[in-house]
Amino acid sequence: MYRPEIKVLDCTIRDGGLINKWQFSDEFVRKVFIALSKAGVDYMEIGYKSSEKYFSRHENGKWKFCDDDDIKRVIDGVETDMKLSAMADIGRVEPEDIPPKSQSVLHMIRVACYANQVDKAITLAHHCMDKGYETTINLMAVSKVIERDIDEALNDLSKSDVPTVYLVDSFGSLYSEQIRALAKKYIEALPGKQIGIHTHNNQQLAFANTIEAIICGINRLDATLYGMGRGAGNCPLELLLSFLKNPKFDIRPILEVIQELLIPLKAKIEWGYHIPYMITGVLNEHPRSAMKIMAEKELPDLRQFYEDLIDGEPLD
Amino acid sequence: MYRPEIKVLDCTIRDGGLINKWQFSDEFVRKVFIALSKAGVDYMEIGYKSSEKYFSRHENGKWKFCDDDDIKRVIDGVETDMKLSAMADIGRVEPEDIPPKSQSVLHMIRVACYANQVDKAITLAHHCMDKGYETTINLMAVSKVIERDIDEALNDLSKSDVPTVYLVDSFGSLYSEQIRALAKKYIEALPGKQIGIHTHNNQQLAFANTIEAIICGINRLDATLYGMGRGAGNCPLELLLSFLKNPKFDIRPILEVIQELLIPLKAKIEWGYHIPYMITGVLNEHPRSAMKIMAEKELPDLRQFYEDLIDGEPLD
Repeated sequence: MYRPEIKVLDCTIRDGGLINKWQFSDEFVRKVFIALSKAGVDYMEIGYKSSEKYFSRHENGKWKFCDDDDIKRVIDGVETDMKLSAMADIGRVEPEDIPPKSQSVLHMIRVACYANQVDKAITLAHHCMDKGYETTINLMAVSKVIERDIDEALNDLSKSDVPTVYLVDSFGSLYSEQIRALAKKYIEALPGKQIGIHTHNNQQLAFANTIEAIICGINRLDATLYGMGRGAGNCPLELLLSFLKNPKFDIRPILEVIQELLIPLKAKIEWGYHIPYMITGVLNEHPRSAMKIMAEKELPDLRQFYEDLIDGEPLD
Repeated sequence: MYRPEIKVLDCTIRDGGLINKWQFSDEFVRKVFIALSKAGVDYMEIGYKSSEKYFSRHENGKWKFCDDDDIKRVIDGVETDMKLSAMADIGRVEPEDIPPKSQSVLHMIRVACYANQVDKAITLAHHCMDKGYETTINLMAVSKVIERDIDEALNDLSKSDVPTVYLVDSFGSLYSEQIRALAKKYIEALPGKQIGIHTHNNQQLAFANTIEAIICGINRLDATLYGMGRGAGNCPLELLLSFLKNPKFDIRPILEVIQELLIPLKAKIEWGYHIPYMITGVLNEHPRSAMKIMAEKELPDLRQFYEDLIDGEPLD
């Protein structure tokens, strides 16, 4: 699939950081930065912009905050056209923690929100645009939102100046037909805007659903090295770049950095397809219960875990 | 997706046996048999029918041969409607090694062949039908076959009495659009026959491509417990049964047997998504070179592995 409008964003450090609390060494982040640059990736999302008011530096690594001095140190001296992005969660960052673009090496701020926070997200995104950044809004967990509320959020977004809106399958629960229906809805509701896709791999559908989104006309694609990301992880960048026929992409630097950094890391911290994540994906639930049992020394009874999640008093 | 015609076949022991040379204990096979029965799976493929003329019993476990006495021992006393299948490869079994159905607990023989062996496969399949078995022909590695040769093979199959033909993505290299085109081709070329799908997971597309095949009207579906199978493995049964809305399926016995047998086994012998398998899948190559380097003590240079596979003198 070759389409020049397609832009790939790698969020290994940002979404992968949800596993290790963003405790990546400078050397790790620099090597990822260089590999992604060489591979022709369009954007690297290097972490979150968060406020120390809400998160301690003691518990969280520096990529939870993305101070410009930290970023500058790891990108120093590297020639690249790749742009840098950071994510901002509604209610977890103060607008004043985001410096003007003229004082930052970041090019883009992506604002993540739930459907019921979309007004706040638009306000923050407009604030970032006023400061000079490219911005997007990433509407999380839409698999849990009733259609009327999605439509309302999209209607609000259509009236905003935010140029890009992401379809996000936070729970890894959507099948290709659902991705198709949602992609159509987003494209129709948001004329003149770019649509993006961010998937999770609970049902081994992250890559397949990203392909489906591309076929539907979605042009902004999230992926991570070796699929690293919270729980079951994300769409693997190496698969995505192999699928895209754009000659600007080269997977060889990606293979190198996966071998040097990601395979050893995966031997230490766990992500990818596991039955607990599969169960929460199938049941369209937040993966937190699965992450909890995956962190235990011994995996508890999986049948019981499943039955507990489907159990509930019938409610008329 | 609920469609009563859909039949699910589990080939954990048969395709998984390609990893451990069919060295499964009787207890393992019996527990799998019981779990699949309880889960409502339609067929269990318990191994290969092979001739000792071609394979040694010293190197290969009993499920490479599927003697009736061995099968009877592991299924003894279990009440079930589930049918049993064995696979026969062209050139690796003698017709006389297949007993008449009246003397066997097997219900079905699936004949696997390459496109250029289809005449031999039809002859063997007719032989099995004459002996009283259900039969299928599984046309392997079609991603490597030029369209004209696929058409010719399908034309031959259309004139045969064989009631079921499988679309097989042996190298795990096909994308959903290619599955759709092939499914359409098979369905149109084989009126009155059932079509099946067997996928490999090199690009994390085994489950997604199985869903695509279902949407296209394919009704015979292969899967394995926890995706166990050669190289990157197959479509995971637990995902497939969760997707199918047929109330006859129950994933809870599958979760139990995965926890008891498959998770411990996967800690010892490797299958699933790994970069070498991904590379052969992306390049539409047989996974043998990937399996070779995966068996080495230390993974060699993956970029080099990729470059060696794409390298070649330009040939006019």
